Amino acid sequence: MEMNDMVMVSIDDHVVEPLDMFEKHFPKSMMSEAPKLTAHPMNPDLQAWVFQGLPIGNMGLNAVASWPKEEWGMDATDHSEIRPGVYDMDLRVRDMDANGVLASMMFGSFTGFAGTHLANLPDKKLALAAFQAHNDWVVGENPSNHPGRFIPMGMIPFYSMDESVKEIHRLAAMGCRSISLPETPYGVGYPDFRSGHWDPVFKALSDTNMVASLHIGGGFGLIQRPTPMDISDMSSFFVDDLIILAALVSTVTATDIMLSGLLKRFPDTKIAMSEGGLGWVPPWLDRMDRHMTNHAWTHLDTLPAGMTPTEVWRKNFLACYITEPSALNNRKRIGIENIAWECDFPHSDSTWPRSPEILWEELQDTECSDKEIDLITHENVARFFSWDPFKHIPKEEATVGALRARATDVDVSETSKAEYRRRYQLANA
Amino acid sequence: MEMNDMVMVSIDDHVVEPLDMFEKHFPKSMMSEAPKLTAHPMNPDLQAWVFQGLPIGNMGLNAVASWPKEEWGMDATDHSEIRPGVYDMDLRVRDMDANGVLASMMFGSFTGFAGTHLANLPDKKLALAAFQAHNDWVVGENPSNHPGRFIPMGMIPFYSMDESVKEIHRLAAMGCRSISLPETPYGVGYPDFRSGHWDPVFKALSDTNMVASLHIGGGFGLIQRPTPMDISDMSSFFVDDLIILAALVSTVTATDIMLSGLLKRFPDTKIAMSEGGLGWVPPWLDRMDRHMTNHAWTHLDTLPAGMTPTEVWRKNFLACYITEPSALNNRKRIGIENIAWECDFPHSDSTWPRSPEILWEELQDTECSDKEIDLITHENVARFFSWDPFKHIPKEEATVGALRARATDVDVSETSKAEYRRRYQLANA
Repeated sequence: MEMNDMVMVSIDDHVVEPLDMFEKHFPKSMMSEAPKLTAHPMNPDLQAWVFQGLPIGNMGLNAVASWPKEEWGMDATDHSEIRPGVYDMDLRVRDMDANGVLASMMFGSFTGFAGTHLANLPDKKLALAAFQAHNDWVVGENPSNHPGRFIPMGMIPFYSMDESVKEIHRLAAMGCRSISLPETPYGVGYPDFRSGHWDPVFKALSDTNMVASLHIGGGFGLIQRPTPMDISDMSSFFVDDLIILAALVSTVTATDIMLSGLLKRFPDTKIAMSEGGLGWVPPWLDRMDRHMTNHAWTHLDTLPAGMTPTEVWRKNFLACYITEPSALNNRKRIGIENIAWECDFPHSDSTWPRSPEILWEELQDTECSDKEIDLITHENVARFFSWDPFKHIPKEEATVGALRARATDVDVSETSKAEYRRRYQLANA
Repeated sequence: MEMNDMVMVSIDDHVVEPLDMFEKHFPKSMMSEAPKLTAHPMNPDLQAWVFQGLPIGNMGLNAVASWPKEEWGMDATDHSEIRPGVYDMDLRVRDMDANGVLASMMFGSFTGFAGTHLANLPDKKLALAAFQAHNDWVVGENPSNHPGRFIPMGMIPFYSMDESVKEIHRLAAMGCRSISLPETPYGVGYPDFRSGHWDPVFKALSDTNMVASLHIGGGFGLIQRPTPMDISDMSSFFVDDLIILAALVSTVTATDIMLSGLLKRFPDTKIAMSEGGLGWVPPWLDRMDRHMTNHAWTHLDTLPAGMTPTEVWRKNFLACYITEPSALNNRKRIGIENIAWECDFPHSDSTWPRSPEILWEELQDTECSDKEIDLITHENVARFFSWDPFKHIPKEEATVGALRARATDVDVSETSKAEYRRRYQLANA
């Protein structure tokens, strides 16, 4: 097996919402109240999605793909400065080809990765319409337009468990394979998983055989820093702290779930730890396993009877990583069937456009077998998400080599914001 | 090499302060105001150290050694229920013999691991006297009484940097090898390491070639749980959460130090991450190293010029672990000279009295060489703490086999609180 023989599927990328998402999918009768990309009410030099009279979330959130490093930051001011493949899905597929990536599962941007920004808005009727419009695009239109290139994942109006259950069933009928949930709901103002509040959602996910994708994000604030972090105020933002410590949120999230009783109540629950990384898993499993015997006195009883934490992890979880050179040394402890690769395009931690080279080097350095490489690059995702990577595209056309061969014209070189703006203005002149 | 050939040195154990510590070492002129073990003012069924009119800290803090598991909990009510080797150092040495442990470095209990409970008291003159009395016992009396069996470590009155610097120099002159510091000072109400507040302490530690031992503890509250944890209220205490997530505090602490600039200002600083564990180190170093190049745009400039985070870690840090079966698979990434074993006697996570068996099994399962075993069991500690394990006891008398051979009469069997109380009352009748 060579690098070009890999079949790479990424279960964590990000879409900056295209301008026509709501024009096409928001209910016609309410169109005047749909989210609109416009000048930021507090700072007219910036653009923002405005909905219900409020600027919502963050338009690009670190969509730095192909910018020079000195231009990196936590946001782009404008669609015009962003690489077009970030929001234009015809171009996105070409950017995936150039990086040898067969298929992608995408999280929203201004909505919040799990729709938290939409869920928190006061008018729930409008919020629900926005959730459904977003889902009709990300689960319906986009995967249909590009068969085999996107794994459909939706988000739910989790301010209401009733509406959430309805939306899960609606999305399942559309072929959806996953729902993005806030990884630590108490970090964004909602009850935690052990409260029982979320049980209807996990029941519906089990009933429809869908994966809960828990992307790190809402839990950042749970790790207290010397000075409190305020994500809405970039000038007070401990960006180094945040990036370095982000992986801690994975341990918190997985512990929450293990201690919540969810896996006892819904033993077929499937959790993908999006952008969670790998290296935290072995020490955490060592700790969890030892805890259950060494600290038997606490009478912890939140896991299915007779199963160790490691056995529960192996059955119910999928760890997802971008690049982590030393982690695969401990792949047997993590579980070789519990590891998935991800690209994180277009965020700053992404390895695009050199993902195959970086991934291959780490797989070789840790002496992974061909079978292990297939599991990590796509087979684990196919099994866990019940999604067939070769339904629309035969394997020989799905490899890194085959995809890149048809994308030799895609320019992946470093390009400044100013140059993107120049091109955008030319194209829209 | 066999299990019995190991020389085991533990740099993290705990002493429950003996009753006569302050009688012997508190200034005679102030003796009526010394800390006293007496009935807890709010709950006369419990004992507490009372000082300045207040019950201080926690007498035993989980001193469960040799109790049946169903009796485990976060505290003993009384010296009478605790294994006597926890507070009687003649018996402690015999408990160490029975566990094959040559030498021990001990943290205080009611004082707080780093003296935080003493530091927070209103009368600073009395607090200073208590710090010095504690140090005179733990750095002076106790190691002198048992040559070669205790690595002297003190604590400092860190409410005052001036007094702290004086105490560091006083302790250095007494042969002290380490100072216990709060690992996340902002977690216990003091300025963080990046503030510059602690610079005089780190300068003094560098000047005296002493190690800063940072035991996990004060930082537990920095990991926010669904319901806030209140360590003073055991009924609201998420004990499972705390135990499972404790290792996260190590990542927070090490990140704090890396981002503080301390290691740029004092490049010879030595940090022992007491009870910090091992497994978090590889992913954290992967992350730190990648951060410095991938996120060069943040212009982070807190490390000595030209050094990567991994190089700084290797030079300045020592990781300490009790038991962690999968961690040594990644020992090359951690750095084989950056790993030390610890016993954690008499706390619930300790492997006493089977430490040699458990340690040996993990060393063998991960195929450590004899040289690696010597580094992990004692050579790394000897080098890092500038402490010669064989100054008083020749190597052939320092091994697991030799120590255990002279402790065959030590009863290490499970013993209930009631039985300890019966024996205590008999002995004190």
